[in-house]
Amino acid sequence: MPEIRQNIATKEWVVISTERAKRPEDFITKKEKKILPERSETCPFCPGNEHMTPYEVFVVNDDMGNWKIRVIPNKYPAVVYEGTVEFKSEGIKRFVSGVGCAEVIIESAKHNHLLALMPERDIEQIVRVYKERYNAAEKDKRIKMIIIFRNYGEQAGASIEHPHSQLIAIPVVPFHIRYRIEEAMRYYDETGRCVFCYMLEEELKLQERIVVETGHFVSFVPYAALAPFHMWVLPRRHTESFGDITDEEITDLAKNLKLTLSKLYYGLDNPDYNFVIRSVPVNEKGKEYYHWYITIMPRLIKTAGFEIGTGMSINSSIPEENAKFLREIKVR
Amino acid sequence: MPEIRQNIATKEWVVISTERAKRPEDFITKKEKKILPERSETCPFCPGNEHMTPYEVFVVNDDMGNWKIRVIPNKYPAVVYEGTVEFKSEGIKRFVSGVGCAEVIIESAKHNHLLALMPERDIEQIVRVYKERYNAAEKDKRIKMIIIFRNYGEQAGASIEHPHSQLIAIPVVPFHIRYRIEEAMRYYDETGRCVFCYMLEEELKLQERIVVETGHFVSFVPYAALAPFHMWVLPRRHTESFGDITDEEITDLAKNLKLTLSKLYYGLDNPDYNFVIRSVPVNEKGKEYYHWYITIMPRLIKTAGFEIGTGMSINSSIPEENAKFLREIKVR
Repeated sequence: MPEIRQNIATKEWVVISTERAKRPEDFITKKEKKILPERSETCPFCPGNEHMTPYEVFVVNDDMGNWKIRVIPNKYPAVVYEGTVEFKSEGIKRFVSGVGCAEVIIESAKHNHLLALMPERDIEQIVRVYKERYNAAEKDKRIKMIIIFRNYGEQAGASIEHPHSQLIAIPVVPFHIRYRIEEAMRYYDETGRCVFCYMLEEELKLQERIVVETGHFVSFVPYAALAPFHMWVLPRRHTESFGDITDEEITDLAKNLKLTLSKLYYGLDNPDYNFVIRSVPVNEKGKEYYHWYITIMPRLIKTAGFEIGTGMSINSSIPEENAKFLREIKVR
Repeated sequence: MPEIRQNIATKEWVVISTERAKRPEDFITKKEKKILPERSETCPFCPGNEHMTPYEVFVVNDDMGNWKIRVIPNKYPAVVYEGTVEFKSEGIKRFVSGVGCAEVIIESAKHNHLLALMPERDIEQIVRVYKERYNAAEKDKRIKMIIIFRNYGEQAGASIEHPHSQLIAIPVVPFHIRYRIEEAMRYYDETGRCVFCYMLEEELKLQERIVVETGHFVSFVPYAALAPFHMWVLPRRHTESFGDITDEEITDLAKNLKLTLSKLYYGLDNPDYNFVIRSVPVNEKGKEYYHWYITIMPRLIKTAGFEIGTGMSINSSIPEENAKFLREIKVR
C-alpha cells in the first residue's frame, strides 16, 4: 500500500507511491552526451568575454592573477539594486517594489568544469564566496531573505552551461518560509528542541537514509523525500543562518558536497539538479528553533496537476532504496 | 522596477520581472507538429484496447451504444482503493496509509481529439462526468480532499496522448490547502466577505486582466499570476465546492472553458498545460469564505532553484499584457 509521508519539520506531504515505484537504476539519465569545450567563444562567463557581463562585484584570483571565481550582478535581474522598499496595497493589488540583489557566482574560469568533479579546495573557495556574498547582502537593511542556489542543466532551469550559481536577496519573507519557521517554533515550544536537530539525530540512529557523513555535515534522503534522490545536507551544529558557517565547517561542507554530488554524477549519469541553501530570514538571527541546510533536488521527473492542486508531491521511488543506491556508489 | 506582487487570496508572492519581461508572442511554442491518428493500435485508452485497462467504473455512451467517455481506475494509482485510513507516528516517521481513489477520465474515443477544439456539448458531458465522479468520491468517508486535474502535453507531465483527465481523492488535507482556507477565513472574519468574490468583483471593475466572461464564469489572468498566461476560471456564484455546480453552470463552464482553452491553443500554438479544479475539503461544506475555481497553468517556463528555495515564482511576463493578448485572439 502506498504511504503518504509527512516531513515532521516542513509538514510537507508526499505520496510514496509503492505501486508506481521505480528502482534507483530506472532514474539513470539517458541524456545525450555533450562534450563541452574548456572555453566557449560565445559564453558570457568565459575569460576574455568579461565585457559581455556587468562589472564584477567580487573576484578570487589564482596565483597568476587570473580570476578563478567571479561574482557579477545578474544582467537580467529578478530584483534590482537601486531603489527603496515600498509596500503598496490598493484593492486587490498588493505589491512591494522589486529591490534587492541578484548576483551570479561564476564558479570557474573553465567552461567545462563540473562542480562534482572539481578538487575539494575549489569547492571550498566557492562556498567561501557564497558566505562572503551572503554576509554582504545581510548588511543591506532592505533585505529580508537571501537565497543562494544552483541550477544545473536544462531541466533545472539553467540557461547557461558555464558553471555558476546565484544569489537573490529579496525584501520580503515569503509565506512558504514563514510557515516553516512557525512550525519549527511550535515544535520547539512543545518539546524544547530544534526539530531539525531531532531529525538528524534519528536519521543517524536509524542509518536507513544516510548518504554521506563527514565531520560537520550529514547528507541524507529525507524520510518524506519530495522526489527521487531528493537530499538534505544538514550541519551537525545547530545554527539557523548559513551566514554563520565557520571556516572549519566550510572545509568540511566542500568535502561533503563533493562526495554527495559525485555520487549523483556517477550513480545517475550526470543528472540535472537544483540545490538551494535554506537559511533563516536575515533579521531573525539567534533563533533556537530554526536550522539552515542545503536541499538538493535532482530533476528527474515532471510535476503535474496533482502537485499544483495539492502542494503535495508524488515520489515514484523509495527513499530508503535511493539512499542505499547512492551510499554504494564508489566515487573515484 | 520589478514588482513583487501578492495574491490577496492565496498570499502567494510572484516577482513580475519587468527587466526580464517577454512579450506575449515570445511564448508561442515552437513544438514539432505531430499529427496524431484517430485511433492508435498501442494506446490503452483507444476503443478496442479496453482490455489493456482496468474495468470501467463509469461510462457515457453515444446513440449507437459506443462509449464516448470512460472512467477507469488508474492502473498505476498514487493511492489505492482497498484499505483503511491509519495515521502513524513513530519518531520522525509520520504517515497515513495511501488509500483513496485514483481514476482516469478518458474524455473521448478519438485518440486525436483536443479538448479545446471539441464541440461545447462534448466538453459539457466531460464536466458532467467530473461532477459525477466528484460526488461519488465525496461519499467515501475516508476521503478528505478530491483533486480533478488535466495534464496536457509532455511538459505538463502527461505520459499518454489520448485526451484524459484524472481524479485523485486522498485521506488528508495538505497544509498548502489548509493555509489557503485559513487565509480566506481570516479575510472573511475581518471584512465579512469572501476574498475570491471580492477579487472577481474588482477584476470585473478594472477589466485589465479579464480573458473570457460568460454567464456564470469569468476567466482571467490573476494580478499575481504565477507564470506566463496562468489563469483562473472563477464561478460568479459563491460556492465552496465544485460538487455543488448546477446543470446551468455546467453548460456555461463548458462554453467558458472552450473559449479560454482555444484562445490558448490558437494564441500560443497549442501549449502544454495543466488545469486543476480547486475545491474545498469534502467534510467542510457550507463555508461562507471559500470559493472553488479552476486554475489553468500553461507550462511555458521551467522552475528553478529560486522557486524551490522560496516557494515564490518568477513570472517573466506581464499579466495585463498576457490577458490583452488572449482577449484579442479570435477563436474560430
